[in-house]
Amino acid sequence: MYIVIVYDVNVRRVNNVKKFLRQHLHWVQNSVFEGEVTRAEFERIKAGLREIIDEDEDSVVIYRLRSRPFREILGTEKNPLEDVI
Amino acid sequence: MYIVIVYDVNVRRVNNVKKFLRQHLHWVQNSVFEGEVTRAEFERIKAGLREIIDEDEDSVVIYRLRSRPFREILGTEKNPLEDVI
Repeated sequence: MYIVIVYDVNVRRVNNVKKFLRQHLHWVQNSVFEGEVTRAEFERIKAGLREIIDEDEDSVVIYRLRSRPFREILGTEKNPLEDVI
Repeated sequence: MYIVIVYDVNVRRVNNVKKFLRQHLHWVQNSVFEGEVTRAEFERIKAGLREIIDEDEDSVVIYRLRSRPFREILGTEKNPLEDVI
């Protein structure tokens, strides 16, 4: 399963979310991560995020895809995705 | 074609990008839009974005998908996606 995570969280929690997601996924740009995960990793990521965010205030959207999506970049690519991650 | 656009642009240009994309797509949360588009709309969106952003500094990533992806939300949903947009 391939996931793209985008988040819009309070500035007090942004660094914790970023530090946590960096352990599991590829940082694409501010507030965006992506990567291939197993079902178990996916559940761990969600559980970990739930411990960090304030569910009444913060927003995390997880796009679940069958495979790595085709991407087009306009401008610069902040953190190029190697072919195999 | 279904697209998810995420962008990381200079604060001076963020509002223009948001105003432009609002005409074409669904605003999901800060710096994230998504929606169903035709090939022609897709080209118009890219051309319009290129006129707004500074390609040496800003970054726009467009995920191209065959259909609307499954989404999971943690926390609040900033701008719920109606079933049919």
